[in-house]
Amino acid sequence: MRRVAVIGIGMTKFGQHWNKDLINLAVEAGSNAIHDAGIHQKDVEVLYGGTMSGGLFINQEHLGSMLPDYLGFKNIPSVRVEAACASGGLALRQGYIDIASGLHDIAVVGGVEKMTDLNLGSVTKVLATAADTEREAVFGATFPGLYAMMAKLHMHKYNTTEEQMATVTVKNHKNAMHNIFAQFHKEVSISDVLKSPMIADPIKLLDASPITDGASAIVLASEEKAKELCDTPVWIAGSGHATDTISLHDREDLLTLKATVGAARQAYDQARVSPKDIQTVEVHDCFTIAELLALEDLGFVKKGDSGKFTQDGQTQIGGKIPVNTSGGLKAKGHPIGASGIAQAIEAVLQLRGDAGKRNTNAEIAMTHNVGGSGGTAVVHIFKR
Amino acid sequence: MRRVAVIGIGMTKFGQHWNKDLINLAVEAGSNAIHDAGIHQKDVEVLYGGTMSGGLFINQEHLGSMLPDYLGFKNIPSVRVEAACASGGLALRQGYIDIASGLHDIAVVGGVEKMTDLNLGSVTKVLATAADTEREAVFGATFPGLYAMMAKLHMHKYNTTEEQMATVTVKNHKNAMHNIFAQFHKEVSISDVLKSPMIADPIKLLDASPITDGASAIVLASEEKAKELCDTPVWIAGSGHATDTISLHDREDLLTLKATVGAARQAYDQARVSPKDIQTVEVHDCFTIAELLALEDLGFVKKGDSGKFTQDGQTQIGGKIPVNTSGGLKAKGHPIGASGIAQAIEAVLQLRGDAGKRNTNAEIAMTHNVGGSGGTAVVHIFKR
Repeated sequence: MRRVAVIGIGMTKFGQHWNKDLINLAVEAGSNAIHDAGIHQKDVEVLYGGTMSGGLFINQEHLGSMLPDYLGFKNIPSVRVEAACASGGLALRQGYIDIASGLHDIAVVGGVEKMTDLNLGSVTKVLATAADTEREAVFGATFPGLYAMMAKLHMHKYNTTEEQMATVTVKNHKNAMHNIFAQFHKEVSISDVLKSPMIADPIKLLDASPITDGASAIVLASEEKAKELCDTPVWIAGSGHATDTISLHDREDLLTLKATVGAARQAYDQARVSPKDIQTVEVHDCFTIAELLALEDLGFVKKGDSGKFTQDGQTQIGGKIPVNTSGGLKAKGHPIGASGIAQAIEAVLQLRGDAGKRNTNAEIAMTHNVGGSGGTAVVHIFKR
Repeated sequence: MRRVAVIGIGMTKFGQHWNKDLINLAVEAGSNAIHDAGIHQKDVEVLYGGTMSGGLFINQEHLGSMLPDYLGFKNIPSVRVEAACASGGLALRQGYIDIASGLHDIAVVGGVEKMTDLNLGSVTKVLATAADTEREAVFGATFPGLYAMMAKLHMHKYNTTEEQMATVTVKNHKNAMHNIFAQFHKEVSISDVLKSPMIADPIKLLDASPITDGASAIVLASEEKAKELCDTPVWIAGSGHATDTISLHDREDLLTLKATVGAARQAYDQARVSPKDIQTVEVHDCFTIAELLALEDLGFVKKGDSGKFTQDGQTQIGGKIPVNTSGGLKAKGHPIGASGIAQAIEAVLQLRGDAGKRNTNAEIAMTHNVGGSGGTAVVHIFKR
C-alpha cells in the first residue's frame, strides 16, 4: 500500500445554520479544502463522504451523486459511507484505502450533517437509530441513557466523580475559545456543569455534546502527488477500524469499547508507535464519560484512572497529553457525519503548527471517532 | 493493485418476507456465501454492505456495526455504503478496492433491503429520496415519472415502441422461471404488459420492477487466498464507478446516462475488453426503458437501436448477448441494496456454468447497477 498524505483542509463554522442547507455546508467545506490544497475541482479524482442520516434528517439519500455535482467534481466516483457518529472517520479511512491502493491519486474526503431542520425530540429519535432500534431504542434507551449507564458503572467501580467528568467539559470549552469554527465560545465552570439540568443521571446537559449543523473536508493525495503539490503534507501513519456489538447489553464489559481497543491496536501497529508516542489526540467526547473511557481504551491511562488523570490537568494543553484541543465534540459541536473529519483537521493544524493558541508542537497526533455506544470505532495516527 | 476473485455466493429468495427482518435476511445470505466459499466466520476479515435506507425503511442506521455482530464476524471492520439502488454494486466495488489494496485477504460483501414493512405509498416516498428531494421529488417526480420522461423521449426520437419495451418484461419473466430465488415465477405476454395498469405514461405496472425484500452476499479473496481456497474462482477483471447530476433536468442529454458510460469505460479499460467481448450482462432494469438505455450506454448497440435489438430477440438466452438471464430487477425482484450483489451472483453462476437452464457458456460477464435516475452507476466485468 502507498503512503497517503493530507494536503488540504476546510470546514464550515459548526453551529446552527438556519440559512444554509446540507449542500451549502458541504460545498463550503469542500471548496475551502481544495483551496487550501491549492488544487482545482478538475484535479479531484474521487470523493468519499460520511453522513449519518440524510434520509431521516433531511429526507435526502443518494448524497454520493448529489455532492460531486454541486461541488463541480463532474462525473467522478463518489462514495457515501455511514457508521452513525463515526461516518466521518470511516470516510477518511475509505478514502485512505482508495489512495493507498493505487486506484486514485487525489481524493476529497468529507463529512456533513444538517440536524437542526428537525425539532429536538425528532433529532433524539434519529440519533437513536444508531443504537439497536428493536432492542434498545424502543425501550427508551436513547444515547444519554446508554452513556449514563457506563458513567454510573465507572463511578461505582473506580470512584470516578461527577466533578471529574465536569472537568472534561471545562477543558473542552476553554480550548474552543481559541477555535473560530467552534459552536460555543463560552467558558464554563465545574459548578456550571454540575448545576446544569439533569438529562440521564449522572449525565447533565453540560456533559453532553450539542446538536449541530456543519461540514468538514480534507484533501488526500498519494505520496508522489503530495510531494509535488504541498510543502507541509501531513502523513497518515496508521489507520484502524473495528466494530463491536451495537447493543450495550451484549458486551462482556460495559466499560471497555472493544471497537476502540481494536481500531487503536491496528493504527498503533501500522504506525509502529505506542500510546506514549502520541502527543495530542482528538477523542470522541459525545459525553464527558466517553472522553474518559477513550483515554483508557486508547492506552493513555490504566482502566479506571482517567477521572483523576483529567482532574489533575494532564489532558489540558501543556499537560501530559493534550486531549481535544479543538474543543472536542462537546464545545466545537457535533454535526454527526462531520465530526470525524473535523478531528483530522485539528490533527493537521497541530502538526502544521497552525493551531494558534491551541498549538501543542506535536509531531504525532491521533484521532478517535466512535459510532453509537461503541459499535464502531475508527482511529487514525498522523505524522508530519 | 492485486487481483481479486469471487470465491463464494449466497442469497435469500427475493420476495415478500413477512416473517423475516433485515437481520434475518442478511444473516441468511451471508451464511450461505461463506458456506459456499467453504470458509468459516473467523476467516472473514472485513465486511462491506450496501443498503439504501435502513433509516427510512426500518428506522435502523449503523448496520455496519449490527450485521457483523449477528453474522458472528466479531469486531471486524465493517463498512456500510449507500448509493441508492446502486448500493450493492458500490459495496462490491469498495470491497474489491480493499482486497486489491492489500489491506485484507478475505471480505464478505453484501446488500440487503427490507422494503415491505412500509405501505406502498411510503415506499414510493422513500425511493424518491434517491432523486433530488427539493428539486424533483417535492414536485411529484417519483421514479416512474422520471423514467417515463426518458421513455417518451426515446419513443419520440427513435420510434421506440411500447411493444419493444414490453419485450424486456416478457424476456425477463421467462428467464426468472428458471431462477428459484426470483420473486416472480410467472410468464407474461406482450399483451399482459400493454394491458397492465398505467403508472406514468408510457410506463405500465409490468414495465416496472417490484417492491422486494431480500439479501445477497459474496465472498471476495485475494489471488493467493482464492487459489488456496477455491477451484472455481471468478475474477474481477474490471471495476468502474461514475456519477452524474442527481436531477434529470440538469443533464445535457436525457437519454444518455453519463454515469453508465463513464463506469463502463473504466471497467472496459481495466479488463482490456470491449463490448463485443461481453457474453452475458446483468443490467439495471428498474424499468423496461432502463434496460434499453443500458444496452446503448454500455456500447452493445448504437443509441436508439435498443428497442429493435430487443424485439429481434438478440438479448434472449441464445441471442447475440443474453441480458438479465437471472430475471433482472423486473422478475427476480429489486430489494434495493441487494440488487447489485445479486447481479454479481448471476455473473458468477454463469461463469461457473452453474446457472442451469439459464446457462450461456459465457467466459466474460458484466454487471451494471444504477442509482436513482442515473446519478450513480457501477459496472463490473468478471472472467472465469
